[in-house]
Amino acid sequence: MNRTVEVCLSPKLYDEKLTKGNFITVITDIFRATTSVVAALDYGVKSILPVADLDEALQLKQRGYVLAAEREGIKLDFADIGNSATEFFHPELKGTTIAYSTTNGVKAINMASDAQKVIIGAFMNLSSVAEIIDKNGLPVVIFCSGWKNKVNLEDTLFAGALASLLIDKFGYTTQCDSAQLSMDLWHIAKHDLIKYIEKASHRHRLAHLINEELLNYTFTPDSSKVVPVFKDGLLVKNKD
Amino acid sequence: MNRTVEVCLSPKLYDEKLTKGNFITVITDIFRATTSVVAALDYGVKSILPVADLDEALQLKQRGYVLAAEREGIKLDFADIGNSATEFFHPELKGTTIAYSTTNGVKAINMASDAQKVIIGAFMNLSSVAEIIDKNGLPVVIFCSGWKNKVNLEDTLFAGALASLLIDKFGYTTQCDSAQLSMDLWHIAKHDLIKYIEKASHRHRLAHLINEELLNYTFTPDSSKVVPVFKDGLLVKNKD
Repeated sequence: MNRTVEVCLSPKLYDEKLTKGNFITVITDIFRATTSVVAALDYGVKSILPVADLDEALQLKQRGYVLAAEREGIKLDFADIGNSATEFFHPELKGTTIAYSTTNGVKAINMASDAQKVIIGAFMNLSSVAEIIDKNGLPVVIFCSGWKNKVNLEDTLFAGALASLLIDKFGYTTQCDSAQLSMDLWHIAKHDLIKYIEKASHRHRLAHLINEELLNYTFTPDSSKVVPVFKDGLLVKNKD
Repeated sequence: MNRTVEVCLSPKLYDEKLTKGNFITVITDIFRATTSVVAALDYGVKSILPVADLDEALQLKQRGYVLAAEREGIKLDFADIGNSATEFFHPELKGTTIAYSTTNGVKAINMASDAQKVIIGAFMNLSSVAEIIDKNGLPVVIFCSGWKNKVNLEDTLFAGALASLLIDKFGYTTQCDSAQLSMDLWHIAKHDLIKYIEKASHRHRLAHLINEELLNYTFTPDSSKVVPVFKDGLLVKNKD
Protein backbone atom coordinates (compact mmCIF):
# COMPACT_ATOMS: atom_id res chain seq x y z
CA MET A 1 0.00 0.00 0.00
CA ASN A 2 1.27 3.46 -0.83
CA ARG A 3 2.18 5.52 2.20
CA THR A 4 1.27 8.86 0.67
CA VAL A 5 -0.16 12.00 2.20
CA GLU A 6 -2.27 14.63 0.46
CA VAL A 7 -3.80 17.81 1.87
CA CYS A 8 -7.13 19.44 0.92
CA LEU A 9 -7.12 23.04 2.11
CA SER A 10 -10.89 23.59 1.82
CA PRO A 11 -14.08 21.50 1.44
CA LYS A 12 -14.28 22.98 -2.07
CA LEU A 13 -11.11 21.07 -2.96
CA TYR A 14 -11.98 17.70 -1.43
CA ASP A 15 -13.54 16.36 -4.62
CA GLU A 16 -10.35 17.28 -6.48
CA LYS A 17 -8.04 15.07 -4.44
CA LEU A 18 -5.97 12.59 -6.42
CA THR A 19 -6.15 9.81 -3.83
CA LYS A 20 -8.63 7.08 -4.75
CA GLY A 21 -9.32 3.55 -3.52
CA ASN A 22 -8.74 2.73 0.13
CA PHE A 23 -7.58 5.67 2.20
CA ILE A 24 -7.98 7.38 5.55
CA THR A 25 -9.37 10.90 5.79
CA VAL A 26 -8.29 13.00 8.77
CA ILE A 27 -10.74 15.85 9.30
CA THR A 28 -9.56 18.95 11.11
CA ASP A 29 -11.41 22.07 12.20
CA ILE A 30 -9.11 23.51 14.83
CA PHE A 31 -11.45 26.41 15.73
CA ARG A 32 -13.30 24.53 17.07
CA ALA A 33 -15.19 21.37 16.15
CA THR A 34 -12.39 18.81 16.04
CA THR A 35 -10.59 20.21 19.09
CA SER A 36 -13.87 20.02 21.01
CA VAL A 37 -14.70 16.47 19.86
CA VAL A 38 -11.30 15.19 21.00
CA ALA A 39 -11.69 17.06 24.30
CA ALA A 40 -15.19 15.72 24.87
CA LEU A 41 -14.32 12.06 24.24
CA ASP A 42 -11.14 12.47 26.28
CA TYR A 43 -13.23 13.81 29.16
CA GLY A 44 -15.53 10.81 29.09
CA VAL A 45 -18.40 11.70 26.73
CA LYS A 46 -19.32 8.33 25.13
CA SER A 47 -20.05 9.52 21.60
CA ILE A 48 -20.87 12.53 19.44
CA LEU A 49 -23.66 12.52 16.89
CA PRO A 50 -22.70 15.05 14.19
CA VAL A 51 -25.69 16.90 12.74
CA ALA A 52 -25.48 19.32 9.83
CA ASP A 53 -29.09 20.39 9.71
CA LEU A 54 -30.58 22.60 12.42
CA ASP A 55 -34.05 21.09 12.10
CA GLU A 56 -32.60 17.67 12.81
CA ALA A 57 -30.58 19.14 15.69
CA LEU A 58 -33.75 20.55 17.24
CA GLN A 59 -35.57 17.22 16.81
CA LEU A 60 -32.74 15.39 18.55
CA LYS A 61 -32.90 17.83 21.44
CA GLN A 62 -36.65 17.21 21.71
CA ARG A 63 -35.90 13.48 21.79
CA GLY A 64 -33.70 14.07 24.84
CA TYR A 65 -30.19 14.50 23.46
CA VAL A 66 -27.95 17.16 24.94
CA LEU A 67 -27.36 19.52 22.02
CA ALA A 68 -24.13 21.39 21.24
CA ALA A 69 -24.70 23.84 18.40
CA GLU A 70 -23.13 27.00 17.00
CA ARG A 71 -23.20 29.05 13.86
CA GLU A 72 -20.32 31.40 13.09
CA GLY A 73 -18.80 30.61 16.46
CA ILE A 74 -21.84 31.63 18.52
CA LYS A 75 -23.95 29.23 20.58
CA LEU A 76 -27.48 28.91 19.25
CA ASP A 77 -30.34 29.91 21.56
CA PHE A 78 -31.97 26.50 21.65
CA ALA A 79 -28.71 24.61 22.22
CA ASP A 80 -27.62 23.36 25.63
CA ILE A 81 -23.96 24.17 25.06
CA GLY A 82 -21.84 25.92 22.42
CA ASN A 83 -18.77 24.41 20.84
CA SER A 84 -15.84 25.41 23.03
CA ALA A 85 -13.96 22.40 24.35
CA THR A 86 -14.51 23.43 27.97
CA GLU A 87 -18.30 23.44 27.58
CA PHE A 88 -18.20 19.66 27.30
CA PHE A 89 -16.58 19.30 30.72
CA HIS A 90 -19.61 18.56 32.89
CA PRO A 91 -19.79 15.36 34.96
CA GLU A 92 -23.38 14.69 33.88
CA LEU A 93 -22.19 14.45 30.25
CA LYS A 94 -19.86 11.53 30.94
CA GLY A 95 -21.07 8.35 29.28
CA THR A 96 -23.69 10.17 27.18
CA THR A 97 -24.14 10.81 23.46
CA ILE A 98 -24.20 14.49 22.51
CA ALA A 99 -25.74 15.82 19.30
CA TYR A 100 -23.37 18.38 17.75
CA SER A 101 -24.04 20.83 14.95
CA THR A 102 -21.34 23.23 13.68
CA THR A 103 -20.72 25.64 10.81
CA ASN A 104 -17.87 23.84 9.09
CA GLY A 105 -16.84 20.62 10.77
CA VAL A 106 -19.94 18.45 10.31
CA LYS A 107 -20.13 19.28 6.61
CA ALA A 108 -16.61 17.88 6.20
CA ILE A 109 -17.52 14.64 7.96
CA ASN A 110 -20.43 14.10 5.58
CA MET A 111 -18.25 14.81 2.54
CA ALA A 112 -15.62 12.30 3.62
CA SER A 113 -17.86 9.25 3.31
CA ASP A 114 -15.73 7.99 0.39
CA ALA A 115 -12.89 7.16 2.78
CA GLN A 116 -12.42 3.72 4.33
CA LYS A 117 -11.83 5.34 7.71
CA VAL A 118 -12.63 8.87 8.89
CA ILE A 119 -10.77 10.15 11.93
CA ILE A 120 -10.73 13.45 13.76
CA GLY A 121 -7.50 15.39 14.24
CA ALA A 122 -6.51 18.38 16.33
CA PHE A 123 -3.24 19.55 17.84
CA MET A 124 -4.19 17.89 21.11
CA ASN A 125 -4.14 14.38 19.57
CA LEU A 126 -1.55 14.99 16.82
CA SER A 127 0.89 12.16 17.63
CA SER A 128 -1.85 9.64 18.35
CA VAL A 129 -3.46 10.38 14.97
CA ALA A 130 -0.10 9.81 13.28
CA GLU A 131 0.37 6.51 15.14
CA ILE A 132 -3.01 5.17 14.08
CA ILE A 133 -2.29 6.13 10.48
CA ASP A 134 1.07 4.35 10.68
CA LYS A 135 -0.63 1.24 12.05
CA ASN A 136 -3.18 1.23 9.20
CA GLY A 137 -0.58 2.09 6.56
CA LEU A 138 -3.16 3.49 4.13
CA PRO A 139 -2.78 6.61 1.99
CA VAL A 140 -3.97 9.66 3.92
CA VAL A 141 -5.97 12.73 2.95
CA ILE A 142 -5.85 15.55 5.50
CA PHE A 143 -9.09 17.47 5.08
CA CYS A 144 -9.12 21.05 6.37
CA SER A 145 -12.66 22.22 7.12
CA GLY A 146 -11.72 25.87 6.56
CA TRP A 147 -14.07 28.75 7.25
CA LYS A 148 -17.10 28.86 4.96
CA ASN A 149 -15.09 27.10 2.26
CA LYS A 150 -12.18 29.54 2.55
CA VAL A 151 -8.70 28.33 3.42
CA ASN A 152 -7.65 29.19 6.99
CA LEU A 153 -4.27 29.27 8.68
CA GLU A 154 -5.04 27.16 11.75
CA ASP A 155 -6.29 24.11 9.81
CA THR A 156 -3.44 24.48 7.30
CA LEU A 157 -0.93 24.49 10.17
CA PHE A 158 -2.39 21.31 11.61
CA ALA A 159 -2.20 19.69 8.17
CA GLY A 160 1.45 20.72 7.97
CA ALA A 161 2.21 19.38 11.44
CA LEU A 162 0.61 15.99 10.71
CA ALA A 163 2.11 15.69 7.21
CA SER A 164 5.57 16.48 8.62
CA LEU A 165 5.21 13.86 11.32
CA LEU A 166 4.05 11.20 8.84
CA ILE A 167 6.92 11.96 6.47
CA ASP A 168 9.71 12.42 9.03
CA LYS A 169 8.79 9.59 11.38
CA PHE A 170 6.62 7.09 9.55
CA GLY A 171 8.02 6.85 6.05
CA TYR A 172 5.18 8.63 4.24
CA THR A 173 5.84 10.65 1.07
CA THR A 174 3.96 13.37 -0.75
CA GLN A 175 3.65 14.80 -4.23
CA CYS A 176 0.98 17.26 -3.18
CA ASP A 177 1.79 20.97 -3.33
CA SER A 178 -0.76 21.74 -0.62
CA ALA A 179 1.02 19.31 1.70
CA GLN A 180 4.32 20.96 0.81
CA LEU A 181 3.12 24.48 1.56
CA SER A 182 1.38 23.35 4.77
CA MET A 183 4.61 21.79 6.02
CA ASP A 184 6.60 24.91 5.17
CA LEU A 185 4.13 27.04 7.10
CA TRP A 186 4.28 24.64 10.03
CA HIS A 187 8.07 24.90 10.12
CA ILE A 188 7.79 28.71 10.31
CA ALA A 189 5.09 28.65 12.96
CA LYS A 190 5.93 25.74 15.23
CA HIS A 191 8.43 27.58 17.40
CA ASP A 192 5.77 30.04 18.55
CA LEU A 193 2.43 28.77 17.39
CA ILE A 194 0.32 31.15 19.47
CA LYS A 195 2.10 34.20 18.11
CA TYR A 196 1.78 32.94 14.57
CA ILE A 197 -1.88 32.18 14.92
CA GLU A 198 -2.54 35.73 16.02
CA LYS A 199 -2.29 36.45 12.31
CA ALA A 200 -5.16 34.13 11.50
CA SER A 201 -8.23 36.02 10.41
CA HIS A 202 -10.41 33.48 12.09
CA ARG A 203 -8.61 34.04 15.38
CA HIS A 204 -9.53 37.71 15.08
CA ARG A 205 -13.11 36.84 14.22
CA LEU A 206 -13.29 34.68 17.31
CA ALA A 207 -11.26 36.95 19.58
CA HIS A 208 -14.26 37.69 21.80
CA LEU A 209 -14.98 33.98 22.19
CA ILE A 210 -11.56 32.49 22.75
CA ASN A 211 -9.62 33.45 25.83
CA GLU A 212 -5.92 32.87 26.32
CA GLU A 213 -6.43 29.69 28.30
CA LEU A 214 -8.53 28.12 25.56
CA LEU A 215 -6.06 29.26 22.93
CA ASN A 216 -3.19 27.55 24.76
CA TYR A 217 -5.31 24.44 25.19
CA THR A 218 -6.14 24.38 21.47
CA PHE A 219 -2.54 24.70 20.30
CA THR A 220 -0.78 22.46 22.82
CA PRO A 221 0.13 19.23 21.01
CA ASP A 222 -0.44 15.77 22.43
CA SER A 223 -2.41 16.46 25.58
CA SER A 224 -4.67 13.51 24.65
CA LYS A 225 -4.30 10.02 23.22
CA VAL A 226 -7.92 9.89 22.09
CA VAL A 227 -8.54 9.53 18.36
CA PRO A 228 -12.22 9.93 17.44
CA VAL A 229 -13.36 7.78 14.54
CA PHE A 230 -16.63 8.06 12.59
CA LYS A 231 -18.52 4.79 12.86
CA ASP A 232 -22.22 4.07 12.20
CA GLY A 233 -23.03 7.75 12.23
CA LEU A 234 -21.27 8.45 15.52
CA LEU A 235 -17.88 9.79 16.56
CA VAL A 236 -16.42 7.38 19.10
CA LYS A 237 -12.97 6.57 20.48
CA ASN A 238 -10.90 4.47 18.09
CA LYS A 239 -10.28 1.02 19.52
CA ASP A 240 -8.45 -0.73 16.66
CA MET B 1 -11.82 52.83 -1.91
CA ASN B 2 -10.44 49.98 0.20
CA ARG B 3 -6.91 48.99 -0.67
CA THR B 4 -7.31 45.34 0.24
CA VAL B 5 -5.78 42.23 -1.24
CA GLU B 6 -7.26 38.75 -1.24
CA VAL B 7 -5.85 35.52 -2.71
CA CYS B 8 -7.79 32.62 -4.29
CA LEU B 9 -5.55 29.56 -4.39
CA SER B 10 -7.63 27.60 -6.93
CA PRO B 11 -10.43 28.24 -9.45
CA LYS B 12 -12.63 26.20 -7.09
CA LEU B 13 -12.26 28.96 -4.50
CA TYR B 14 -12.85 31.98 -6.74
CA ASP B 15 -16.60 32.04 -6.11
CA GLU B 16 -15.90 32.05 -2.38
CA LYS B 17 -13.92 35.29 -2.34
CA LEU B 18 -15.19 37.98 0.02
CA THR B 19 -14.39 40.91 -2.27
CA LYS B 20 -17.47 42.30 -4.03
CA GLY B 21 -18.24 45.47 -5.98
CA ASN B 22 -15.48 47.09 -8.02
CA PHE B 23 -12.22 45.22 -7.94
CA ILE B 24 -9.29 44.10 -10.07
CA THR B 25 -8.56 40.43 -10.63
CA VAL B 26 -4.96 39.46 -11.35
CA ILE B 27 -4.83 36.06 -13.00
CA THR B 28 -1.69 33.99 -12.71
CA ASP B 29 -0.73 30.67 -14.22
CA ILE B 30 3.05 30.66 -13.93
CA PHE B 31 3.52 27.30 -15.73
CA ARG B 32 2.81 28.60 -18.32
CA ALA B 33 -0.09 30.59 -19.71
CA THR B 34 0.41 33.95 -18.01
CA THR B 35 4.20 33.88 -18.36
CA SER B 36 3.76 33.19 -22.08
CA VAL B 37 1.12 35.89 -22.60
CA VAL B 38 3.36 38.54 -21.01
CA ALA B 39 6.32 37.29 -23.08
CA ALA B 40 4.31 37.31 -26.32
CA LEU B 41 2.95 40.85 -25.91
CA ASP B 42 6.37 42.04 -24.76
CA TYR B 43 7.89 40.54 -27.92
CA GLY B 44 5.46 42.39 -30.15
CA VAL B 45 2.45 40.12 -30.62
CA LYS B 46 -0.51 42.52 -30.91
CA SER B 47 -3.10 40.54 -28.98
CA ILE B 48 -4.04 37.11 -27.67
CA LEU B 49 -7.50 35.62 -28.13
CA PRO B 50 -8.05 33.20 -25.23
CA VAL B 51 -10.09 30.14 -26.21
CA ALA B 52 -11.24 27.48 -23.76
CA ASP B 53 -12.93 25.13 -26.21
CA LEU B 54 -10.87 23.06 -28.65
CA ASP B 55 -13.60 23.08 -31.33
CA GLU B 56 -13.53 26.87 -31.29
CA ALA B 57 -9.71 26.80 -31.37
CA LEU B 58 -9.78 24.62 -34.50
CA GLN B 59 -12.35 26.90 -36.19
CA LEU B 60 -10.15 29.93 -35.48
CA LYS B 61 -7.17 28.17 -37.03
CA GLN B 62 -9.26 27.39 -40.11
CA ARG B 63 -10.17 31.09 -40.28
CA GLY B 64 -6.47 31.93 -40.44
CA TYR B 65 -5.42 32.57 -36.88
CA VAL B 66 -2.10 31.27 -35.65
CA LEU B 67 -3.08 28.82 -32.92
CA ALA B 68 -1.19 28.17 -29.68
CA ALA B 69 -2.71 25.22 -27.83
CA GLU B 70 -1.73 22.67 -25.22
CA ARG B 71 -3.35 20.22 -22.88
CA GLU B 72 -1.47 19.00 -19.81
CA GLY B 73 1.60 20.89 -20.96
CA ILE B 74 1.86 19.19 -24.37
CA LYS B 75 1.34 20.96 -27.72
CA LEU B 76 -1.71 19.70 -29.56
CA ASP B 77 -1.19 18.15 -32.99
CA PHE B 78 -3.27 20.67 -34.90
CA ALA B 79 -1.78 23.71 -33.15
CA ASP B 80 0.91 25.88 -34.74
CA ILE B 81 2.79 26.39 -31.49
CA GLY B 82 2.64 25.11 -27.90
CA ASN B 83 2.58 27.32 -24.86
CA SER B 84 6.20 27.91 -23.87
CA ALA B 85 7.09 31.59 -23.84
CA THR B 86 9.88 31.12 -26.39
CA GLU B 87 7.51 29.62 -28.98
CA PHE B 88 5.94 33.05 -29.41
CA PHE B 89 9.26 34.59 -30.45
CA HIS B 90 8.94 34.53 -34.24
CA PRO B 91 9.22 37.74 -36.29
CA GLU B 92 6.17 36.82 -38.39
CA LEU B 93 4.03 36.82 -35.22
CA LYS B 94 4.74 40.47 -34.46
CA GLY B 95 1.64 42.61 -34.83
CA THR B 96 -0.69 39.60 -35.14
CA THR B 97 -3.48 38.18 -32.99
CA ILE B 98 -2.84 34.65 -31.76
CA ALA B 99 -5.60 32.27 -30.63
CA TYR B 100 -4.51 30.57 -27.40
CA SER B 101 -6.05 27.58 -25.67
CA THR B 102 -4.61 26.17 -22.41
CA THR B 103 -5.54 23.69 -19.68
CA ASN B 104 -5.93 26.07 -16.76
CA GLY B 105 -5.33 29.70 -17.66
CA VAL B 106 -8.19 30.43 -20.07
CA LYS B 107 -10.72 28.94 -17.68
CA ALA B 108 -9.63 31.45 -15.05
CA ILE B 109 -10.03 34.38 -17.44
CA ASN B 110 -13.60 33.35 -18.19
CA MET B 111 -14.40 32.97 -14.49
CA ALA B 112 -13.09 36.45 -13.66
CA SER B 113 -15.71 38.32 -15.68
CA ASP B 114 -17.18 39.74 -12.45
CA ALA B 115 -14.13 41.99 -12.02
CA GLN B 116 -14.00 45.57 -13.29
CA LYS B 117 -10.55 44.93 -14.68
CA VAL B 118 -8.79 41.63 -15.42
CA ILE B 119 -5.01 41.70 -15.74
CA ILE B 120 -2.40 39.04 -16.28
CA GLY B 121 0.45 38.57 -13.82
CA ALA B 122 3.69 36.59 -13.87
CA PHE B 123 7.06 37.02 -12.17
CA MET B 124 8.35 38.76 -15.28
CA ASN B 125 5.91 41.69 -14.88
CA LEU B 126 5.51 41.61 -11.08
CA SER B 127 6.41 45.24 -10.29
CA SER B 128 4.48 46.64 -13.25
CA VAL B 129 1.35 44.77 -12.16
CA ALA B 130 1.71 46.24 -8.67
CA GLU B 131 2.13 49.76 -10.11
CA ILE B 132 -1.04 49.51 -12.20
CA ILE B 133 -2.96 48.24 -9.19
CA ASP B 134 -1.62 51.15 -7.12
CA LYS B 135 -2.70 53.59 -9.83
CA ASN B 136 -6.23 52.17 -9.93
CA GLY B 137 -6.45 51.89 -6.13
CA LEU B 138 -9.15 49.20 -6.26
CA PRO B 139 -9.38 46.11 -4.05
CA VAL B 140 -7.45 43.24 -5.61
CA VAL B 141 -8.13 39.54 -5.94
CA ILE B 142 -5.12 37.47 -6.97
CA PHE B 143 -6.49 34.44 -8.77
CA CYS B 144 -4.21 31.40 -8.98
CA SER B 145 -5.15 29.14 -11.89
CA GLY B 146 -3.70 26.07 -10.19
CA TRP B 147 -3.39 22.69 -11.84
CA LYS B 148 -6.72 21.04 -12.62
CA ASN B 149 -8.29 22.91 -9.72
CA LYS B 150 -5.56 21.84 -7.30
CA VAL B 151 -3.45 24.39 -5.46
CA ASN B 152 0.09 24.64 -6.80
CA LEU B 153 3.26 26.14 -5.33
CA GLU B 154 4.33 28.33 -8.25
CA ASP B 155 1.07 30.28 -8.50
CA THR B 156 0.89 30.56 -4.70
CA LEU B 157 4.41 32.00 -4.65
CA PHE B 158 3.50 34.61 -7.23
CA ALA B 159 0.42 35.54 -5.19
CA GLY B 160 2.66 35.94 -2.14
CA ALA B 161 5.17 38.06 -4.03
CA LEU B 162 2.49 40.40 -5.37
CA ALA B 163 0.58 40.62 -2.08
CA SER B 164 3.83 41.44 -0.23
CA LEU B 165 4.66 44.19 -2.70
CA LEU B 166 1.19 45.72 -2.47
CA ILE B 167 1.28 45.66 1.32
CA ASP B 168 4.88 46.75 1.86
CA LYS B 169 5.09 49.40 -0.84
CA PHE B 170 1.59 50.55 -1.75
CA GLY B 171 -0.36 50.67 1.49
CA TYR B 172 -2.58 47.66 0.84
CA THR B 173 -3.84 45.50 3.74
CA THR B 174 -5.22 41.98 3.97
CA GLN B 175 -7.46 39.95 6.23
CA CYS B 176 -7.22 36.91 4.01
CA ASP B 177 -5.50 33.80 5.38
CA SER B 178 -4.59 32.63 1.88
CA ALA B 179 -2.78 35.93 1.29
CA GLN B 180 -1.02 35.49 4.63
CA LEU B 181 0.19 31.98 3.87
CA SER B 182 1.22 32.95 0.32
CA MET B 183 3.36 35.78 1.66
CA ASP B 184 4.97 33.54 4.26
CA LEU B 185 5.84 31.02 1.55
CA TRP B 186 7.23 33.80 -0.64
CA HIS B 187 9.47 34.99 2.20
CA ILE B 188 10.88 31.45 2.57
CA ALA B 189 11.37 30.98 -1.16
CA LYS B 190 12.43 34.35 -2.52
CA HIS B 191 16.12 34.02 -1.70
CA ASP B 192 16.43 30.98 -3.99
CA LEU B 193 13.25 30.68 -5.98
CA ILE B 194 14.54 28.10 -8.45
CA LYS B 195 15.65 25.75 -5.70
CA TYR B 196 12.36 26.13 -3.89
CA ILE B 197 10.30 25.50 -7.00
CA GLU B 198 12.09 22.22 -7.56
CA LYS B 199 9.71 21.01 -4.89
CA ALA B 200 6.67 21.88 -6.95
CA SER B 201 4.89 18.81 -8.21
CA HIS B 202 3.99 20.63 -11.38
CA ARG B 203 7.64 21.41 -12.03
CA HIS B 204 8.32 17.68 -11.86
CA ARG B 205 5.39 16.93 -14.15
CA LEU B 206 6.78 19.41 -16.65
CA ALA B 207 10.44 18.53 -16.16
CA HIS B 208 10.75 17.12 -19.69
CA LEU B 209 9.24 20.29 -21.16
CA ILE B 210 10.97 23.04 -19.22
CA ASN B 211 14.69 23.43 -19.54
CA GLU B 212 16.89 25.42 -17.19
CA GLU B 213 16.90 28.49 -19.40
CA LEU B 214 13.10 28.63 -19.52
CA LEU B 215 12.93 28.03 -15.78
CA ASN B 216 15.23 30.98 -15.11
CA TYR B 217 13.23 33.12 -17.53
CA THR B 218 9.97 32.18 -15.78
CA PHE B 219 11.18 33.04 -12.29
CA THR B 220 13.21 36.18 -12.98
CA PRO B 221 11.14 39.12 -11.73
CA ASP B 222 10.61 42.32 -13.69
CA SER B 223 12.13 41.51 -17.06
CA SER B 224 9.09 43.20 -18.68
CA LYS B 225 6.94 46.26 -18.13
CA VAL B 226 4.04 44.83 -20.16
CA VAL B 227 0.78 44.25 -18.29
CA PRO B 228 -1.77 42.34 -20.38
CA VAL B 229 -5.38 43.36 -19.76
CA PHE B 230 -8.52 41.53 -20.92
CA LYS B 231 -10.59 43.86 -23.11
CA ASP B 232 -13.37 43.02 -25.57
CA GLY B 233 -12.42 39.37 -25.54
CA LEU B 234 -8.73 39.96 -26.18
CA LEU B 235 -5.59 40.19 -24.07
CA VAL B 236 -3.78 43.39 -25.04
CA LYS B 237 -1.16 45.66 -23.50
CA ASN B 238 -2.60 47.89 -20.79
CA LYS B 239 -2.47 51.53 -21.88
CA ASP B 240 -4.27 53.28 -19.00
